[in-house]
Amino acid sequence: MGTSYFGHQIFNCYAPETGNIKLLIMAGTDQQKEKYLKPLLEGECKAFFAMTERNVASSDPTNFETTITKQGDGYIIKGSKWMVTGIQDPRCKFGIIMGKTTVNSKSPFTEQTLFLVDTQHPNIKILKPLSVLGYDEAPNGLGEMIFDNVYISKEQMLGKEGAAFAMSQGRLLGGRLHHCVRLLGLTRRSIDTLLERGQRRYHEGKKQKEDTSYQEKIGKIECEYQICKTMILNAAMILDSLGGRHMQSLKAVSEVKVAIPNKCQWINDECIQLFGAQGITTDYILQIAFQASKSVRLMDGPCELHKKQVARFTQGSHMFNELVNVNGYIANL
Amino acid sequence: MGTSYFGHQIFNCYAPETGNIKLLIMAGTDQQKEKYLKPLLEGECKAFFAMTERNVASSDPTNFETTITKQGDGYIIKGSKWMVTGIQDPRCKFGIIMGKTTVNSKSPFTEQTLFLVDTQHPNIKILKPLSVLGYDEAPNGLGEMIFDNVYISKEQMLGKEGAAFAMSQGRLLGGRLHHCVRLLGLTRRSIDTLLERGQRRYHEGKKQKEDTSYQEKIGKIECEYQICKTMILNAAMILDSLGGRHMQSLKAVSEVKVAIPNKCQWINDECIQLFGAQGITTDYILQIAFQASKSVRLMDGPCELHKKQVARFTQGSHMFNELVNVNGYIANL
Amino acid sequence: MGTSYFGHQIFNCYAPETGNIKLLIMAGTDQQKEKYLKPLLEGECKAFFAMTERNVASSDPTNFETTITKQGDGYIIKGSKWMVTGIQDPRCKFGIIMGKTTVNSKSPFTEQTLFLVDTQHPNIKILKPLSVLGYDEAPNGLGEMIFDNVYISKEQMLGKEGAAFAMSQGRLLGGRLHHCVRLLGLTRRSIDTLLERGQRRYHEGKKQKEDTSYQEKIGKIECEYQICKTMILNAAMILDSLGGRHMQSLKAVSEVKVAIPNKCQWINDECIQLFGAQGITTDYILQIAFQASKSVRLMDGPCELHKKQVARFTQGSHMFNELVNVNGYIANL
Amino acid sequence: MGTSYFGHQIFNCYAPETGNIKLLIMAGTDQQKEKYLKPLLEGECKAFFAMTERNVASSDPTNFETTITKQGDGYIIKGSKWMVTGIQDPRCKFGIIMGKTTVNSKSPFTEQTLFLVDTQHPNIKILKPLSVLGYDEAPNGLGEMIFDNVYISKEQMLGKEGAAFAMSQGRLLGGRLHHCVRLLGLTRRSIDTLLERGQRRYHEGKKQKEDTSYQEKIGKIECEYQICKTMILNAAMILDSLGGRHMQSLKAVSEVKVAIPNKCQWINDECIQLFGAQGITTDYILQIAFQASKSVRLMDGPCELHKKQVARFTQGSHMFNELVNVNGYIANL
Repeated sequence: MGTSYFGHQIFNCYAPETGNIKLLIMAGTDQQKEKYLKPLLEGECKAFFAMTERNVASSDPTNFETTITKQGDGYIIKGSKWMVTGIQDPRCKFGIIMGKTTVNSKSPFTEQTLFLVDTQHPNIKILKPLSVLGYDEAPNGLGEMIFDNVYISKEQMLGKEGAAFAMSQGRLLGGRLHHCVRLLGLTRRSIDTLLERGQRRYHEGKKQKEDTSYQEKIGKIECEYQICKTMILNAAMILDSLGGRHMQSLKAVSEVKVAIPNKCQWINDECIQLFGAQGITTDYILQIAFQASKSVRLMDGPCELHKKQVARFTQGSHMFNELVNVNGYIANL
Repeated sequence: MGTSYFGHQIFNCYAPETGNIKLLIMAGTDQQKEKYLKPLLEGECKAFFAMTERNVASSDPTNFETTITKQGDGYIIKGSKWMVTGIQDPRCKFGIIMGKTTVNSKSPFTEQTLFLVDTQHPNIKILKPLSVLGYDEAPNGLGEMIFDNVYISKEQMLGKEGAAFAMSQGRLLGGRLHHCVRLLGLTRRSIDTLLERGQRRYHEGKKQKEDTSYQEKIGKIECEYQICKTMILNAAMILDSLGGRHMQSLKAVSEVKVAIPNKCQWINDECIQLFGAQGITTDYILQIAFQASKSVRLMDGPCELHKKQVARFTQGSHMFNELVNVNGYIANL
Repeated sequence: MGTSYFGHQIFNCYAPETGNIKLLIMAGTDQQKEKYLKPLLEGECKAFFAMTERNVASSDPTNFETTITKQGDGYIIKGSKWMVTGIQDPRCKFGIIMGKTTVNSKSPFTEQTLFLVDTQHPNIKILKPLSVLGYDEAPNGLGEMIFDNVYISKEQMLGKEGAAFAMSQGRLLGGRLHHCVRLLGLTRRSIDTLLERGQRRYHEGKKQKEDTSYQEKIGKIECEYQICKTMILNAAMILDSLGGRHMQSLKAVSEVKVAIPNKCQWINDECIQLFGAQGITTDYILQIAFQASKSVRLMDGPCELHKKQVARFTQGSHMFNELVNVNGYIANL
Repeated sequence: MGTSYFGHQIFNCYAPETGNIKLLIMAGTDQQKEKYLKPLLEGECKAFFAMTERNVASSDPTNFETTITKQGDGYIIKGSKWMVTGIQDPRCKFGIIMGKTTVNSKSPFTEQTLFLVDTQHPNIKILKPLSVLGYDEAPNGLGEMIFDNVYISKEQMLGKEGAAFAMSQGRLLGGRLHHCVRLLGLTRRSIDTLLERGQRRYHEGKKQKEDTSYQEKIGKIECEYQICKTMILNAAMILDSLGGRHMQSLKAVSEVKVAIPNKCQWINDECIQLFGAQGITTDYILQIAFQASKSVRLMDGPCELHKKQVARFTQGSHMFNELVNVNGYIANL
């Protein structure tokens, strides 16, 4: 499925929907499930997920500035969110937003709460679409949203107060694997596109596939691809057997996040060099796979952040039950 | 000037115009200069340059298939050209096209001839714009052109018959340096954009510029930038003193082509990682510099081709006066 | 066991002994097993393996020049062998030599035959020990041997005539994995040595382990290590389930050979940079692990050769039963 | 001269002699010049330079622990020094040692003083030679020295009290360039050794130099070599015109230190892969050039330190006259 750019859309199994569905199943009330989960599962609508903010380094969640303040029986959302996936899609009817409900709690990791918000609201403004490396990513376009004192009832709260960070980390763990799986699918298709043409392309009187330089590069590309595949399968196996809150799972997923987007970028970059200038035109999948690689390196925490995460696990300086204090990677729901 | 994406447009000093102007000065007849060169120098119109073809590896010029056959007093152009720079600009009034006038001459490097062609012609079709890595590159858009038996008079021939390859190589030598200079300008701007923000961005309680990992990366980025700058100045000095037909100039320009687009891509890639997700949105120059780096790696011969070129010069297997036979890099006009 | 430089010596499980033992079990006659295999298994003596030759690119086996010519009831060995593992050890009593018994057979891959040779022979000269990157590798020293018309009886032939290449390929497949496993063990020890010191080393007023640049590098190092480990386990699993003559096994082992020595060299190189100048002195394991990485990149076929091998498997141009003709990687015994 | 491993020994122009000579000319008294400088210039003896200490990160000079305490009319040296270049040479008659004379001065950069010490002294012990990556580096062997309450007269002080750091930085600036120049010479010889053999080596039926993979790699190697050469010439030019205390000189030398040892290591590593296993034996220069590259990456401050230095200069956070406080890179003599 990953080898198609649209496959996960068609099978209703794409970001941010899979994560939103998971959150609703895990923490939604019956009413929330009826109103929001059902149409999502039926594919009748789509939903955004609004966490990242423009002006702060979002990899450090204590930086988030949007507030959701109690007022009367409900809450007032005030702030802006950025890089909101899916918001440009006309089918996007509602979404999940993270905001600060408590100030100065014991830990910055228990200050944020999730809420369900309908997209259509007079005080919600959707700013210009964000193109990423030149692509609008339709139908899945990113956008910036302004919440100008948006009132919501307390029934819209998703999960407990202060649980946002823990809940979205659980969401991100699988999400990181999914991103990498999808990216690797696209990358496989780049490689196959190249191999297919290498069988019939001529250069200086011989077939490209008989050129030793081409062969060495194909060998290296295939090795890197196999490394990615083995790593993902290994991490998925660990995650399935130990669950999302075990240190081995966290470490394995961070290792995947460090290595795979980077390797896929290298593979797609090299494939394009071997394919020639056609590889950067819209005629072929290679340019999309290249652009997607670069984007995924920045999604869900840049790779550099995950290197430090892996180092911390490796140094063994933190026992598992202390992890709640370490970048908030694990917390009680 | 290079630090601006538009600077070279504003100063009428951009690809493919500089190269076209050079060819017209060097080889144009008085009539051709009056009709074509003058408005180009005045900035009244623009011109395309059509060499590359879609279906063949254009880095090997013996692959080109478009024919320009003598018929009566003139010639008939038949074939298609691709990656034609500037053709999407409405101000593009004419252009230079390369085609095969002679079949089975002594050398494939003396079979091609250049002609001046007006863009408006019932038998010339301009196909869909080519976006490159998601960018339409307006106003400088690339396109594909079909020449469906286009008749032109013999006065439209630019330079001598069979001289196309030699002439366009001369054009490409400076062109390769120009591309690299402009790219390095954009890259400098990426670095400065990053440095400026690093002075005031906070992460985990301290300024980004005080983070040792950030410092080491800035140090490496600056070193790579300085290498690029020194190499370009060195190559330009050699080209100015020895001229475009000396082996040292060819070698120095090929070394620039091997190293600089690659290094600029690395620098811009790294700058974006340090800058965060904003770096891949249209809000900042970084994504354009990244995309431009990748494109330049494929322009005017992919870097890989130039590595082999450098190897040949290094192995000293060819004396200068034999170079006419070696990839046609030098020939008598 | 791999984390020790001497472990595999102590457990009698090192190169070239494991391979020699395997060959004797597989193809030895009862007399050969009694005389040669038994003392080897008991650890009473050691044995060399002589394949590589100095003056030809040994990665292409058709280049080998040593001849073993039939004469009367026996054979005459004439030629020289180089990089002969274990020959400098005084306990080295015999060895296995590969030489050309047939000239112009159907295939260059069926011209070579293996023989058992006693080390003590007046016509065998052992030239100077070869130090590798400055290490003498005692007790396992490499050497060069001259076979100046050495007569051996026909009973010394190991396996069938012409089967040398197929037999030693089978030997090399496991051997390549072993080399990589041992190297990875040493590499783990380098990493642990570094981590241990990073816990207590101070730099500019703070512990090294708290430096973000150090953390990012440790994270990257650990990821690369995990990739190596996962790849080896995966290849070993494939080799165990499918056997040494299945294309998937050949491909997986070649992928290991391409990736692991290279990654281990990078890891050890980086560990030394983080460890400082002490890392290149004999006080620590790091320099040995670094040197071993570089050596393994050249052993049993340089990594570059295996890249091409992987490419061939990837391009699927060869069905399994044609592999006999492809670099002789598989043949009937 | 750099292409020979011994050239700089023969011409009496090697580390640490050139630096020692420079210090004596600059700061020696007449008596010191007569006794120490003269025989050094005549090549009659050699001298060590003792700065680095084993147990502390020597890249941070505030870590040095050896003390030189005033006692009566003279001083007592107490401590140990490590990685002392040249100490194993029997011709080594004296040396220069750096030690802490003042504790808690205004700046850690003005606490250290230089002294001239005769090698033969009952309280000086020279410990085991240090082999570096397996090489003893004779005649220039490194060693560890113990100074067990060594008494020296006050006439042995070289330069002013507290000036050691400033003086040795001046020494190191040229020294770093020298190391890189010599290393680049060795690297050139590796490349030429490879090219020479590539002209006549056969592989799979064709000359190595005709293999496209080999050509691409030679092209890349030559480009990297030219980058190194251009950078060194550029830095030397800046150093000659602006002098050793100008920020541009400091930046240019640090850039050289970041880039060149690393690039030379890559070049020599790649040359060995192309040369095959002979490249790591003592028969050829390639292994020495490879080993030297790795050593130089750690000498005079590891490359990583210089990256941070370049970053500081790039960020322009320090005006020139504040540099005295920044890692002590510049100070008044």
